[in-house]
Amino acid sequence: MKVPPSVRWQEGRLWLLDQRRLPAEVAYVERTDAADVAQAIACMQVRGAPAIGVAAAYGMALAARAGDDLDAAAATLIAARPTAVNLAWAVHRVRAAGDPVAEAKAIHREDTAMCHAIGEYGVGLLRDGMGVLTHCNAGALAVSALGTATAPMYLAHEAGVRLRVFVDETRPVLQGARLTAWELSRAGLDVTLICDGTAAHLMAEGAVDLVITGADRVTANGDVVNKIGTRGLAISARYHLARI
Amino acid sequence: MKVPPSVRWQEGRLWLLDQRRLPAEVAYVERTDAADVAQAIACMQVRGAPAIGVAAAYGMALAARAGDDLDAAAATLIAARPTAVNLAWAVHRVRAAGDPVAEAKAIHREDTAMCHAIGEYGVGLLRDGMGVLTHCNAGALAVSALGTATAPMYLAHEAGVRLRVFVDETRPVLQGARLTAWELSRAGLDVTLICDGTAAHLMAEGAVDLVITGADRVTANGDVVNKIGTRGLAISARYHLARI
Repeated sequence: MKVPPSVRWQEGRLWLLDQRRLPAEVAYVERTDAADVAQAIACMQVRGAPAIGVAAAYGMALAARAGDDLDAAAATLIAARPTAVNLAWAVHRVRAAGDPVAEAKAIHREDTAMCHAIGEYGVGLLRDGMGVLTHCNAGALAVSALGTATAPMYLAHEAGVRLRVFVDETRPVLQGARLTAWELSRAGLDVTLICDGTAAHLMAEGAVDLVITGADRVTANGDVVNKIGTRGLAISARYHLARI
Repeated sequence: MKVPPSVRWQEGRLWLLDQRRLPAEVAYVERTDAADVAQAIACMQVRGAPAIGVAAAYGMALAARAGDDLDAAAATLIAARPTAVNLAWAVHRVRAAGDPVAEAKAIHREDTAMCHAIGEYGVGLLRDGMGVLTHCNAGALAVSALGTATAPMYLAHEAGVRLRVFVDETRPVLQGARLTAWELSRAGLDVTLICDGTAAHLMAEGAVDLVITGADRVTANGDVVNKIGTRGLAISARYHLARI
C-alpha cells in the first residue's frame, strides 16, 4: 500500500496524519495525551469512524501510561465525536484492559484484519474493465489499512484487475475529492473525480457497473446510514444497474 | 420583480449584468459592438440560452446601426456559444429584419411574454406550504424576466402562496448557489441552498413535493437535455414523488 497510514504508533509515540491538509501536504502531528487526541478528533485531523476508534484507543493507552485520570480521559475522548460508534467502543475496551498499550495495538491489528476480510469478500465482484463508483471516503485514510469500501478495489488492483474508479467529490466537505481520489490515485488506480450529480448520467452511459460506499451505521433490519448523497446513488443504481 | 435584469437596453445602449460577479456584486458592463457582445457570451458574463439570444439580438442591432459588416458580426456572435440554440436563431432573425433595433426589442419582449406564459401555466401546480426543488439557474438571470423554471415560483409568491424552495448548488460552476439562490431570496422567497446529493434525502423526508428545472433542449420525442445532475433528480423524483 502506498497510502500513508492515518494513525501511526511508533516506539510508544502516537502520530496522526493531518487529513485536513490533504491532498496538498502529507504531515504527521504527534499527539501526547488523551485531551490532545480528543482535540485531533474534534477538529477532524483524524476522521473516519474506524481511524477515530484506533486513535482514541492509543489516546487511552497514553493516559494509562502517564497515570492520568482514566475516567476523565475516557469522557473527554468520547465527547469528541459522539456519532462515531467505534470511539466509545474502543475507549471502553482499552479502559477495561490489563495492558492498555497492548489492547490499543490489538484494536489496530483487528481493524486492519477486518479491512482485509472486507476486501477478500468483495474482490470477487470486480472484473477486469469494470467501472466502480464510490462516495465520500471509506478508504485507507478513514480506517487503518485498505479501507472498507475501497478494500476490494485495492485488492483487485494488486491482483492486476483493471478498474476505472469514479469518485464523487462529496460535498460539502469534499472528502471524495480531497481524500479518496488522492489515496486511490496514489496507489496507482485509474481514478476519475466527478461532481456529486454525475452518477446517474454515467450509469446511463454504461460506465458504472458497481457502486461501493461505506456505511456510518447498518441497522438490524438492513437499513444503512451514510453520508448525504448515498440515498440518491442507491436509487440511481437500482434504476440503472440492479440485477436481482 | 426585484431581480436585476441580465440584459438592459436603455436609450440605445446595451448593458449586461456581469453574472460572474454575482452574488458578491451587482455590476453592469456596457457592450458597444457585436465582437464585444460575443466576448461577453464566451466568458459567461451573460449566460442562459434565452438571455444569450436577447444579448446577441442587441449585438446585431448595434452592428447594423454602426454600419458594420453584418455577416462578420453574425459569424462572430454565433461562434461565441455554439450550444445555445437561441443565439443563432436571434442573430438570423435580426439579420433579416428591416429594423434591427426594433427586431431585437421584439425578441426581448417575446421572451418576457414566454416566461410569463410558463409561469401562468405552471403556477397552478403550486399550493401553499409546498416544497419545490430546482437545479442550476433557469431563473430570471438566465432569461429576460421571471425565468423559465422559476416563473411559476415567482408568480405563486406574488399571489401570496408560501413555498419553500430548495436550490441545488449545482456543481461544478455553482449556478444554483451563486445565481438561483441569490435571485429567489432577493425576490423574497424562502430559499434553502443544498448540496447536489441532498435531494433524495429531502424527498424521502417529505420536504419536496415538486421538482422544476429548466431544459437546454427538449427533443421531438420528449427527451430532455439539461445540466449534469438533472437525470439523478428525475430518477429520485420518480422513485419518491411520481403520481401517475
